Amino acid sequence: MHVPFEKLKAEFKRVLSELAFTEGKAEIIATVFAENSRDGVYTHGLNRFPVFVRYVKDGLININADPVKLAAFGAIERWDGNLGPGILNARFAMNRAMGLAAENGIGCVAIKNTNHWMRGGTYGWQAAEAGFISISFTNTIANLPPWGGISPRLGNNPLVIAVPRTNGPVVLDMAISQYAVGKLKQYEANNNEALPLPGGYDDEGKLSTDAAAILKSQRLLPVGFWKGSGLSLVLDILATILSGGNSTAEITKSEHETGISQVFICIRPDSDEQIESLIEGIIEYTKTGLPEYEGASISYPGEGTLRTREKNLREGVPVDEGIWNEVVNM
Amino acid sequence: MHVPFEKLKAEFKRVLSELAFTEGKAEIIATVFAENSRDGVYTHGLNRFPVFVRYVKDGLININADPVKLAAFGAIERWDGNLGPGILNARFAMNRAMGLAAENGIGCVAIKNTNHWMRGGTYGWQAAEAGFISISFTNTIANLPPWGGISPRLGNNPLVIAVPRTNGPVVLDMAISQYAVGKLKQYEANNNEALPLPGGYDDEGKLSTDAAAILKSQRLLPVGFWKGSGLSLVLDILATILSGGNSTAEITKSEHETGISQVFICIRPDSDEQIESLIEGIIEYTKTGLPEYEGASISYPGEGTLRTREKNLREGVPVDEGIWNEVVNM
Repeated sequence: MHVPFEKLKAEFKRVLSELAFTEGKAEIIATVFAENSRDGVYTHGLNRFPVFVRYVKDGLININADPVKLAAFGAIERWDGNLGPGILNARFAMNRAMGLAAENGIGCVAIKNTNHWMRGGTYGWQAAEAGFISISFTNTIANLPPWGGISPRLGNNPLVIAVPRTNGPVVLDMAISQYAVGKLKQYEANNNEALPLPGGYDDEGKLSTDAAAILKSQRLLPVGFWKGSGLSLVLDILATILSGGNSTAEITKSEHETGISQVFICIRPDSDEQIESLIEGIIEYTKTGLPEYEGASISYPGEGTLRTREKNLREGVPVDEGIWNEVVNM
Repeated sequence: MHVPFEKLKAEFKRVLSELAFTEGKAEIIATVFAENSRDGVYTHGLNRFPVFVRYVKDGLININADPVKLAAFGAIERWDGNLGPGILNARFAMNRAMGLAAENGIGCVAIKNTNHWMRGGTYGWQAAEAGFISISFTNTIANLPPWGGISPRLGNNPLVIAVPRTNGPVVLDMAISQYAVGKLKQYEANNNEALPLPGGYDDEGKLSTDAAAILKSQRLLPVGFWKGSGLSLVLDILATILSGGNSTAEITKSEHETGISQVFICIRPDSDEQIESLIEGIIEYTKTGLPEYEGASISYPGEGTLRTREKNLREGVPVDEGIWNEVVNM
């Protein structure tokens, strides 16, 4: 089933308005949820909207909260998100980081007590479309075992690195787990189809492509085995100490993924340089290698997004009919 | 065979002095090479020293070059390394980034036309010991195929993230290849012992733990499959556009890994926060999970370094006898 982008957004906005969000806040949140589905990130668009609504109803997200500045020094600032909607807080923080970068060449905003930002790439696009390079990351509830362990103690702590570019920005939006829990559940639901590549361990400690077995063992694979385990840990440390907020440990103890910590670094590119041609040169070179098989494509991060966006704007956004009806009946 | 740290350093310094390095430069370079072996990173300590000497003799490294500032704006600076020794340029750039962070909370230095920094962790330790958080990365010659391709077109572009800590800093020093070429060659030389985990593809395109087969196919695995491929690409883009220097494409065309591009970001932690206790809390929580097997250890990045350092200072630094004799006879 397909739903036009504007209809998707309007329905989100109606629900948010009925939850008593102000018109301005409802507009932004509805737009981001709709854009996430429009760009093909369905897990953090429509599919996640009912969870967001439940969090609001349960009081885990404060719809009236605005971020408050706690400390500032030069090009770095620390903010409290006051448990407001993660989308609004993240947009605000990235915007502030851009302001600092415009003034200082580079800027950093750390925010504590915020909520899930949904699709991390949203904020990479935001900065790139305004002409800024960005590096941003968030911590999460524990959902990965550290290397050498079998109990989840690390978040999948998505890392987003984005670079402006005339023909569509380069946007890496990378969680540290090889496959998201949601993705594993999709494979499990689909007759437990084998994963294309190992995504974790089974109960016997063997690398596995069996989504059900991985979900059972809870031993999801971090990218690059021990390397992703270390990367997840240092991103949590940075988010926690720069914001003075909750670590994955504290978030996990509360059992709900709320009150998380995020970092937004922006860099103003030097416009004197022939940046566009440098980027094109890198992308072109990367694509000149032999493909793995005839027709295999080599792409840069974010390359598929514009294609998906155009298709979904033209043909309507694919929706899970059950979830769509749930939202329509809210 | 074991050699005392001071003897290792003295021998390096003697060779460097005979190559006409100034006393000050010879001291720093000898110290870093010796420290890399002392800390267990033998591949970028003694084992790499003869390559460094050859690069100097071949004129690929200019022993008299000093970095020159090209541009500055607020907390960000661009420098030209003038093909000087990578160790000196990287130390200088990290030091400058610390200066910018001390003034502005955060600082960024990008340097072009530099040379191999040897062990990336060196500069993470440098910043951490001075009380700064750092994020640094370098591009390299192409040695990884991009996802979907089979020809090397991406560098393994090491990424270093380091955090100061009283009981030893947290230092993630992570190349984007799952195993370094040097590591694969070690396994190959050791009766082609199987890798503990897949490290690339064989000629038939199957994930493999056979080091010789992977070296033959040149299809080394990026961390996290498509994710590491994207991460390598964006790190190369950032290093190239921020420094205005050579990309992996340009470095690879020259056939020698010289004239590379690096980025050093430093952040001054907010001393008002109980940062130490936040870090300890995160590390402790990570270690509380069940181990994979009895006796398996869960460690933070850099944890093993201090143990190795103490052991090697006590018992002497393990050296490859052939390479050691080569250096002694230089």
